Amino acid sequence: MNNNMSPAGSLERLRALDKERMHISRAAALLQWDQETFLPSGGIEERAEQLAVLEGLAHEKLVHREVGELLDRLSDVLSLNDAGMLLNTQDGFPVGDFIRVLRRDYEKAVKIPVDFVRECAKAEGLSQAAWVEARKQKDFTAFAPHLEKMLNFARQKAEFWGWEKSRLYDGLLDYYEPSLGVKELTAIFGPLRDRLQLLLRKITEKPRPGDVFLHHNFEKAKQEAFCREVLSGIGFDGTRGRLDISAHPFTTTLGFNDVRITTRYAVSDPLSGLFSVIHESGHAFYELGLDNALQYSCLAEGTSMGIHESQSRLWENVIGRSRAFWEPWFSRLQDCFSAELGETDFDSFYRTVNTIVPGPIRVEADEVSYSLHIILRFELEEKLLSGKLEVNELPEAWNAGMKDYLGVECTDDAEGVLQDVHWSMGAFGYFPSYALGNLYALQIWDTLNEEIGPVDTMLQRREYGDIHSWLKDNIHCKGRSKEPAELIREVTGRSLSADSFFRYIEQKYSELYGI
Amino acid sequence: MNNNMSPAGSLERLRALDKERMHISRAAALLQWDQETFLPSGGIEERAEQLAVLEGLAHEKLVHREVGELLDRLSDVLSLNDAGMLLNTQDGFPVGDFIRVLRRDYEKAVKIPVDFVRECAKAEGLSQAAWVEARKQKDFTAFAPHLEKMLNFARQKAEFWGWEKSRLYDGLLDYYEPSLGVKELTAIFGPLRDRLQLLLRKITEKPRPGDVFLHHNFEKAKQEAFCREVLSGIGFDGTRGRLDISAHPFTTTLGFNDVRITTRYAVSDPLSGLFSVIHESGHAFYELGLDNALQYSCLAEGTSMGIHESQSRLWENVIGRSRAFWEPWFSRLQDCFSAELGETDFDSFYRTVNTIVPGPIRVEADEVSYSLHIILRFELEEKLLSGKLEVNELPEAWNAGMKDYLGVECTDDAEGVLQDVHWSMGAFGYFPSYALGNLYALQIWDTLNEEIGPVDTMLQRREYGDIHSWLKDNIHCKGRSKEPAELIREVTGRSLSADSFFRYIEQKYSELYGI
Repeated sequence: MNNNMSPAGSLERLRALDKERMHISRAAALLQWDQETFLPSGGIEERAEQLAVLEGLAHEKLVHREVGELLDRLSDVLSLNDAGMLLNTQDGFPVGDFIRVLRRDYEKAVKIPVDFVRECAKAEGLSQAAWVEARKQKDFTAFAPHLEKMLNFARQKAEFWGWEKSRLYDGLLDYYEPSLGVKELTAIFGPLRDRLQLLLRKITEKPRPGDVFLHHNFEKAKQEAFCREVLSGIGFDGTRGRLDISAHPFTTTLGFNDVRITTRYAVSDPLSGLFSVIHESGHAFYELGLDNALQYSCLAEGTSMGIHESQSRLWENVIGRSRAFWEPWFSRLQDCFSAELGETDFDSFYRTVNTIVPGPIRVEADEVSYSLHIILRFELEEKLLSGKLEVNELPEAWNAGMKDYLGVECTDDAEGVLQDVHWSMGAFGYFPSYALGNLYALQIWDTLNEEIGPVDTMLQRREYGDIHSWLKDNIHCKGRSKEPAELIREVTGRSLSADSFFRYIEQKYSELYGI
Repeated sequence: MNNNMSPAGSLERLRALDKERMHISRAAALLQWDQETFLPSGGIEERAEQLAVLEGLAHEKLVHREVGELLDRLSDVLSLNDAGMLLNTQDGFPVGDFIRVLRRDYEKAVKIPVDFVRECAKAEGLSQAAWVEARKQKDFTAFAPHLEKMLNFARQKAEFWGWEKSRLYDGLLDYYEPSLGVKELTAIFGPLRDRLQLLLRKITEKPRPGDVFLHHNFEKAKQEAFCREVLSGIGFDGTRGRLDISAHPFTTTLGFNDVRITTRYAVSDPLSGLFSVIHESGHAFYELGLDNALQYSCLAEGTSMGIHESQSRLWENVIGRSRAFWEPWFSRLQDCFSAELGETDFDSFYRTVNTIVPGPIRVEADEVSYSLHIILRFELEEKLLSGKLEVNELPEAWNAGMKDYLGVECTDDAEGVLQDVHWSMGAFGYFPSYALGNLYALQIWDTLNEEIGPVDTMLQRREYGDIHSWLKDNIHCKGRSKEPAELIREVTGRSLSADSFFRYIEQKYSELYGI
């Protein structure tokens, strides 16, 4: 490195290195997208090797000594001078945030020894394979030793990152959602759990509404056509993204103007594919709403898992399952499936898409049950990481929690403790972000309504422009330049709580179920 | 580098480096495939940058000092000992060929200065843009200065590679088709030109057969269904490849078990899309027929442009436009387009797919005209590179050649000298491989027929297995381990000539046109 480089020169060099790494990461993301959508089965094995090479290259670029030196030098400059001096030269690029976020990424990566990463990756592969097999056999015991290993790796990771032994789970949570640790989450999730549990009990005492989708086959090609109509109708720009099919729906960013979503269709349910499309488009709107100044930098992404999930759940549930949203769309759905739904009245349809039925499977859960699934996982993760719960005690604790929170009996481990892939990959601390998404979503939605609402008239007219503008200006455009805690305070005027979310749930479902 | 590394260790290291580079190149190929098939328009600009990064990384890996050192060390070992000593340890991997081919790639890359590459790439971008614009304006003069630059870059490149000033075009030809230079090509192309010219004149004096496709619209979805049926029928393995749509048909290798082809459909012609599919599947069969031992190495590709083109043309023309091939397929085509072709008799259909009509556009040319288009380009390239022809004299020379060889008048530069993209990219020496493909194809076909033929009965029964096996065992499996000249001599017992090709053309079209 040239030691006489000016601060501006150093910044330019650091941004060039960051940009190159982003390009490699996005190329890797394309390899992954293709793997889930179009890759011929014969190509799977080699694809894994190609991905490992690109991910390795991106990692090398991130932990390169020059990156560390440039970060140090620029941090010194920023602490000596007013950051504004540099900022002014950067066309609205937030230099201070860039240094902060890149330093965090750099340190997260550089603190983990290469040998450990390699060992982890190998163990993860074995663990996932064991999980697949154990799930097939519906037997937790075969997976237990792998889970033990994954827990130890996760603990070590948090230690490498510098967390005290007593706060390792905080370290993992922080990776996905900065500044929301065990203490904060317990304070939010505990009371929410009790309120949801009570509401759910009241709902399940009421008669269950009929299912208007029963006894029909909904042709997949027609579903896809309807999905594309809705997707375009809610404002997804087809010149900046795509919709394809994969086994598990996902969103991936392949470029600043290339964000792709996927879904899958079930003939028995004309809306499960659609709700995935709307969910993923919420993620995509976030990534497509970034400020141009952030392009090609590490800031050009959503700021946290929880905020990301807030955008997808806002669109899927708060908007996508609302009465006002469906008022104009229901007749279009009827046009597509006239034989199947021509005679259905709107009210029955609306009840069907908002039916509450607690069940064992998280990904099929309704709006009331969903957060309870997550809170249980959070509590179990906390106990596992801190050693309060042994791995072999997990299935029993799981089943007891499901019975207690949701009134559900798991018939076997496959639909119980083995249902999710996350733990087999060592992704502890990830689950809470799903529930946080719900809470952020409603807190943001309340503010949006105060500022531009009520939005029901807009939804009834299929006018989504003001909603998009508000979300873009207040959330999306900022990318990673704002930490989630700061973002939510700035946007909504208060720290995260479950109040907005529970009020929304209580009001909507009390009305629907006559409670 | 560890200087005490054993020969086996050096080889292992060199193969690992080569494999990593191949993985990066294949990732780049996926980026390109996606660009031509599915990339949203908004993503084009960033994709170009992503591609540049990956191609840069692949280049870095190729020209790395360690590669040169390992090549030197292993060459020394191979020259001292019997190559067999190493070979034996390598499960059929041809070590000597690997060192030879990788050294050639390495030297081709390392001899070109980085600054020159960058300057070239920039000029090529401008040149291509100017070509697009000039073609739109149908005016060569705006493109002429760029062509001049491209010629100079090409000359410099050949000089960097070590070719004498008097043999620069030989150097460029050698890049695409080793050991076939100006002298060899002139000796083959000259007499072929005269014979084709004479035959073409005789054909055009005869009445032109009717066109059974006229006055119909052939629905694209039906065309695609038929293409997929034929593709699978001729033995394309859907677990090792895909068929998609792009503006210009192409084949790309994304992995040893992932070779993808594309086509496009025209409503006015039910077979133009199909012939592209068959053509590209010929390329794909080659790449899918490589020996397993070559996987992940630089040998895992076709040996030259000409041999590659021989495989595509063999399938598209020699097989795909033959009477025997269509005998069983025609009724299937009629089933797909019963309204349009139900009343058509086989003989008229067969004449239509083999109609000879000389025209100005190379990519639309028939089997008799095609090679004349190429020979004209070869002769003009030779004159341009050697300075016998000035750039500003090119359009006139082009038009005179078209008139002389094909009896065609070009109405403007767009359908004349500006029709192909190749020269705007500086790809001089590439064109001859298209005609060489025709010649290799028929020389190979004659041998195949001697050894397993006549194949007409196989084609009539839609039995392609023996053809595939023969091509795989004799051509495909060898990849780059055999140079094309050596390959063709070993397989057919003689050096390349135009005899088989012309005999095939003369016989087929004399019969069709009653000459």
